[in-house]
Amino acid sequence: MNFEEFFASALVTLKDEGNYRHFAELERHRGTFPSATCHNGPGEVTIWCSNDYLGMGQNPKVLDAMHEALDRTGAGAGGTRNISGTTHDHVLLEAELADLHGKEAALLFTSGYVSNWAALGTLCARIPDLVVLSDALNHASLIEGIRYSRARKVIWKHNDVGDLEEKLRALPAEVPKLIVFESVYSMDGDIAPIAEICDLADQYGAMTYLDEVHGVGLYGPRGGGIAEREGLMDRLTVIEGTLGKAFGVVGGYIAASAALCDFVRSFASGFIFTTALPPAVAAGAAASVRHLKDSSLERTEHQKKVEEVRRKLDEIGLPHIDNPSHIIPVMVGDPVKCRYISDRLLEDHGIYIQPIGYPTVPKGTERLRITPSPVHSKADVKRLISALEALWTECQLARQPIAAQ
Amino acid sequence: MNFEEFFASALVTLKDEGNYRHFAELERHRGTFPSATCHNGPGEVTIWCSNDYLGMGQNPKVLDAMHEALDRTGAGAGGTRNISGTTHDHVLLEAELADLHGKEAALLFTSGYVSNWAALGTLCARIPDLVVLSDALNHASLIEGIRYSRARKVIWKHNDVGDLEEKLRALPAEVPKLIVFESVYSMDGDIAPIAEICDLADQYGAMTYLDEVHGVGLYGPRGGGIAEREGLMDRLTVIEGTLGKAFGVVGGYIAASAALCDFVRSFASGFIFTTALPPAVAAGAAASVRHLKDSSLERTEHQKKVEEVRRKLDEIGLPHIDNPSHIIPVMVGDPVKCRYISDRLLEDHGIYIQPIGYPTVPKGTERLRITPSPVHSKADVKRLISALEALWTECQLARQPIAAQ
Ligand SMILES: Cc1ncc(COP(=O)(O)O)c(C=O)c1O
Ligand SMILES: Cc1ncc(COP(=O)(O)O)c(C=O)c1O
Repeated sequence: MNFEEFFASALVTLKDEGNYRHFAELERHRGTFPSATCHNGPGEVTIWCSNDYLGMGQNPKVLDAMHEALDRTGAGAGGTRNISGTTHDHVLLEAELADLHGKEAALLFTSGYVSNWAALGTLCARIPDLVVLSDALNHASLIEGIRYSRARKVIWKHNDVGDLEEKLRALPAEVPKLIVFESVYSMDGDIAPIAEICDLADQYGAMTYLDEVHGVGLYGPRGGGIAEREGLMDRLTVIEGTLGKAFGVVGGYIAASAALCDFVRSFASGFIFTTALPPAVAAGAAASVRHLKDSSLERTEHQKKVEEVRRKLDEIGLPHIDNPSHIIPVMVGDPVKCRYISDRLLEDHGIYIQPIGYPTVPKGTERLRITPSPVHSKADVKRLISALEALWTECQLARQPIAAQ
Repeated sequence: MNFEEFFASALVTLKDEGNYRHFAELERHRGTFPSATCHNGPGEVTIWCSNDYLGMGQNPKVLDAMHEALDRTGAGAGGTRNISGTTHDHVLLEAELADLHGKEAALLFTSGYVSNWAALGTLCARIPDLVVLSDALNHASLIEGIRYSRARKVIWKHNDVGDLEEKLRALPAEVPKLIVFESVYSMDGDIAPIAEICDLADQYGAMTYLDEVHGVGLYGPRGGGIAEREGLMDRLTVIEGTLGKAFGVVGGYIAASAALCDFVRSFASGFIFTTALPPAVAAGAAASVRHLKDSSLERTEHQKKVEEVRRKLDEIGLPHIDNPSHIIPVMVGDPVKCRYISDRLLEDHGIYIQPIGYPTVPKGTERLRITPSPVHSKADVKRLISALEALWTECQLARQPIAAQ
């Protein structure tokens, strides 16, 4: 077999389908984010698709904590958590996260992806006869965790508690069950009916595993996520989150009972056999979590900016998914047009919004996923809206009826 | 089912078997590593089991690069590689790594574990009918990558080219094959016969995937690993490495042809659906790689320190696995005694060596895995040896015949 030819031809197929990914090479500027230099593009751009939702990646407290930890302890952890890699900064961060979610304990992983894969994989593989009830639109990392476990999986219709109940009812009462879902779904921005899912979990004796990756830092009085906002944290068995999005650094975690965390700590290959995060990363993340526990300013400004962008899109009739979160998916519905608009935004307007296509979203639902942040200025919003308006006209894309003003 | 009871009883079983892991909570001191504060132990200790093999975690060039990148770009990448998370620093690091291994391209992952899991998983799953030939002692991350792919797996006896050849010969000529192995095996410290494996790969038309996690930075004129030292880098299809051990930071990568890297970049779930490493981490790792390309001082001093410790252990007849690498496994062979010695070293002598037991190594081969570094002083070595000697006597552990001096 000619391996090189095989790789090359698979890439040609991707390109032909319009699904080949070009990465923008960015250099953000601390203090002036969302501005950045695009090294393989037109130079200076404004980023409108970052998951550093609140701009915490340039928060002085976060950066000071990282500088301080670098000076104090050096660059890396130097080992796996078990073999010399557990640092004081990891332990402090885990305590901060347990407190954030009102749980007995928390456990850090190298990323949110790994936390889902490793924690879910371990729980589902090791609890005998467990049946996993997984929302149909769950993230790749959740799907891979369940797949890893080889546990029996039942998929329920996205955010549909009626369907979930049917699936629960069909299972024998004595079978252990775990319901896996997300709070904010990152590509459509819709939010799960957490309370009703918890009711069903109670009724059917199921555990719950909630991915709050797009909720933590952003919702709730202390940034504990949608479950905190709705007073539901204590009803969930496991809350999983990331330190790489609203918290602005990198890493992932679960928060749960002490025994559950200790169990995952003791058995999860993806936790055990890997170098721990650098202490400076842990220190920066802890500073971010701490700051957002005390300050709601970022959250308030964030919601206002989201509301403003959404309103302005409505004013010019641009189609976007109506949802109750901070994510604004502007729908294009065609991979080639979606990339074209993204390219024109970048080249002609200095606006960077990565086109989202298959396999991240279904074919035919290609979109520009806009993530406004408190650090976008009024002028940034104005430029975004007028650029989109011009391109929508140029591409003769459909508009929605414009509400009478 | 009572989930809490289930977790608790599994933990009791681990404790009863002596396999429950206690993490030492450390705080390293930049500039005076290997010293550290053990927050849940006796205070100041000397670390003798770190995988920051060369002390690069406190190298001023590495730390300066991280400080500089934090000041320049902020804390996190703010997105997945595809969606706003590819930074200039990632691109520079990938070029540095491709150059290190003499390959067309390199691809970064959040860790060495994820690089193995995701790259191997993708290659083995997507190349039709691929058969994987996996060394019997391969690392968990390699095993999980192969397991993920559900490709057919043939295990060959550890480092046994005769057995590998038999297994290759038994497969049909037209079946695509991939040989997966490590250069330095981290728990025994033995080294694979890379040249002979490459010969077999050529003969049977197989691809090769070499994990150089415990080789990169440490061997070869520019720190390219064992394969560089032996002039074999161009004969390997994929070289995988970590930025978290000899390079002192965190992260993982593969280096290979441009088409192979682009293929993995395009299809690997564990690469696509996760936040990119912070640019400061990439910058620090690049500085470390660059430094170790130019400087052999750390490698020379490292080898000398390893040789010194090994010689002193021989002088007092302590049993350790004889191997040609930098890893010194002192064998205890009993989980309880191993933990006891480790505890006494820590409490009475301020020496931290994590006991290694099942499942990291087979039961009955419990050990103290000692990793000397250039930053251990002569006095550190002296204290280590006399503490071990005292404990060996106290525990009435077997000694090896001491060579006539
Ligand atoms: C729902 C969801 N879960 C988990 C992850 C993974 O988190 P991380 O980026 O920290 O790996 C992501 C995105 O990356 C996500 O969107
Ligand atoms: C042989 C081997 N491969 C891969 C890894 C994983 O690398 P990382 O620590 O960067 O995740 C390790 C150790 O952690 C290892 O020993």
